[in-house]
Amino acid sequence: MERCAIGIDLGGTVLKGGIVSESGRLLEYRSTPSRVFEGPDRVLGNLTTMADLLTAKASECGYPVAGIAVATPGVIDPVFGGIVGGAENLPGWEGVPFMKMMHERFGFPVMAHNDVTTHVLGETRFGAGVGKKDVIMASFGTGVGGGIIVGGNLYTGSIGYAGEIGHFTTHAGGQLCACGIRGCWEEYASIRGILRIARRRVDEARRAPRPPGLPASSLLEAWPAQVEKDTPAGPDPAMIFEAARDGDGLALEIVDEIGREAAVGIGGLINIFNPELFIIGGGIASASEIYLEAVRRHVPDWTLKLSMGSVRIVPASLGYEAGVIGASVLAFDRINVYGAG
Amino acid sequence: MERCAIGIDLGGTVLKGGIVSESGRLLEYRSTPSRVFEGPDRVLGNLTTMADLLTAKASECGYPVAGIAVATPGVIDPVFGGIVGGAENLPGWEGVPFMKMMHERFGFPVMAHNDVTTHVLGETRFGAGVGKKDVIMASFGTGVGGGIIVGGNLYTGSIGYAGEIGHFTTHAGGQLCACGIRGCWEEYASIRGILRIARRRVDEARRAPRPPGLPASSLLEAWPAQVEKDTPAGPDPAMIFEAARDGDGLALEIVDEIGREAAVGIGGLINIFNPELFIIGGGIASASEIYLEAVRRHVPDWTLKLSMGSVRIVPASLGYEAGVIGASVLAFDRINVYGAG
Repeated sequence: MERCAIGIDLGGTVLKGGIVSESGRLLEYRSTPSRVFEGPDRVLGNLTTMADLLTAKASECGYPVAGIAVATPGVIDPVFGGIVGGAENLPGWEGVPFMKMMHERFGFPVMAHNDVTTHVLGETRFGAGVGKKDVIMASFGTGVGGGIIVGGNLYTGSIGYAGEIGHFTTHAGGQLCACGIRGCWEEYASIRGILRIARRRVDEARRAPRPPGLPASSLLEAWPAQVEKDTPAGPDPAMIFEAARDGDGLALEIVDEIGREAAVGIGGLINIFNPELFIIGGGIASASEIYLEAVRRHVPDWTLKLSMGSVRIVPASLGYEAGVIGASVLAFDRINVYGAG
Repeated sequence: MERCAIGIDLGGTVLKGGIVSESGRLLEYRSTPSRVFEGPDRVLGNLTTMADLLTAKASECGYPVAGIAVATPGVIDPVFGGIVGGAENLPGWEGVPFMKMMHERFGFPVMAHNDVTTHVLGETRFGAGVGKKDVIMASFGTGVGGGIIVGGNLYTGSIGYAGEIGHFTTHAGGQLCACGIRGCWEEYASIRGILRIARRRVDEARRAPRPPGLPASSLLEAWPAQVEKDTPAGPDPAMIFEAARDGDGLALEIVDEIGREAAVGIGGLINIFNPELFIIGGGIASASEIYLEAVRRHVPDWTLKLSMGSVRIVPASLGYEAGVIGASVLAFDRINVYGAG
């Protein structure tokens, strides 16, 4: 019987888990709130319950288990067996040797890696990047993360922290990022960036005299004028994309600017890496074809001709279970195995 | 007897050539003006004369020749045997199958690669990066070029065009680059960028009332007020660095801003690659310790803490002959051999 892996995707909001076959089929899938703000003990408990369920199911079905693999925010140290930094969204999780604990409890090899990195690994093995050797993936969501495949292999850098593409500066001296750098790409191309752009455009539109005969944008109503400038409350990106699809002029302008900001960084990465494939993933990208269209329209403005001519830009294809499926690749390839060093 | 390689570095101004031993010793070195503006026939003639001289010398000394390797601007296609793009500084050179021609004339294997890429290869084998696996090099000169070493190997991308780090956008919508992108890092961190920064600072200083008691900057005299704004005539970078070393206040401010602009991109690259070593090379860097100091002072402002803590930033060590020595690595490792595909 084909081997399987237990893949777990520890997100800030949802904990997802599944049994994945060596050919990439998702044999079993579960999800539950991850409750990361209740602290590391709760997270560890949830993780263990998920692994309990899935290993029991695998054993019941007779699948030989290659290992348990966890996609998590942050930088993994597989010798220590946990995260050693870079996981601001998981309070208290840094320094918890969860790989060690899970290995002791379940007896299987335990692997872990950064979530976006894991995602690109899944896309390259089972999704949009099958058979490609030089691949970059950007994931647009709460932040902007990245994964780098070089010569068919995952590139992780000297301490496993490579791929922080959201923190290269595209607007030097611009918006202050949570990381402390001024003008990170992430501040312009994440959900936070999108909502800031939309808020500015909506405010501008509210102040400007409306051309006679043109209907008012639906965003003006959806977005209350009184909200504090600094809290980007109001429509979420999906609402903007929907209005744009309905032909709302203001929404179309916003989507164009959003696409441009994403394209600035995508172009830069294509110039640096000359990849054959650039995969666009994450919550924003999966939400809307109109977003992808805007991004694609602007990328050539920020990309050298030779590299533009040799790259395809495609959406991620694994969808919501990408982290789970990607994690299985860690297990099958024995990447970042706890205690192997 | 130890093998040797004929390494040739075809620059826009100078053609350099040498005989390099397999342990990286420069056994013989020659240079001559490259006269690229006299057209491709002249360049090919110069290249052939250089190779003639060096192969004769190698044969005279009894060194077995591993091959002839050329570092050149542009993107090499080793099957075609020449440059297929990206070499705007070498008019007419695109489409000349010089590798094929040299192979037919000399009988040795002929290799070629992009000049900055070749340089980083040399630094990693024989210079500042010996024994390092994940290395990024940025070369600051007429432009800003880069080289990427991943897992100890040269990373070249899908068509050999990787490493165009000067063309990621650090100032979105800013200064128009020759490549057509607005706000390329190169526009701020190359000699062109440095002179633009200096020109602006000097103009500002000329208009501002001088604080009593402070001596006028030497740059005000060196830089005539009447020069066209668009032609960055006036002091060259070395003159600015020298004035700064002498304690000239205006020059010190300019060097600080220059260092900051270089640091913006260096930080972004460290965030993307999490390298163990970042090598700073090129004409600007080699000219002045005060420049390197300014760059190093600013890099932490643009770099994530975890990646900053795991990287060393060092100057290139091979100096003026870097291209020649780097080219020899192409020959010894048989990278981009003409006709091998």
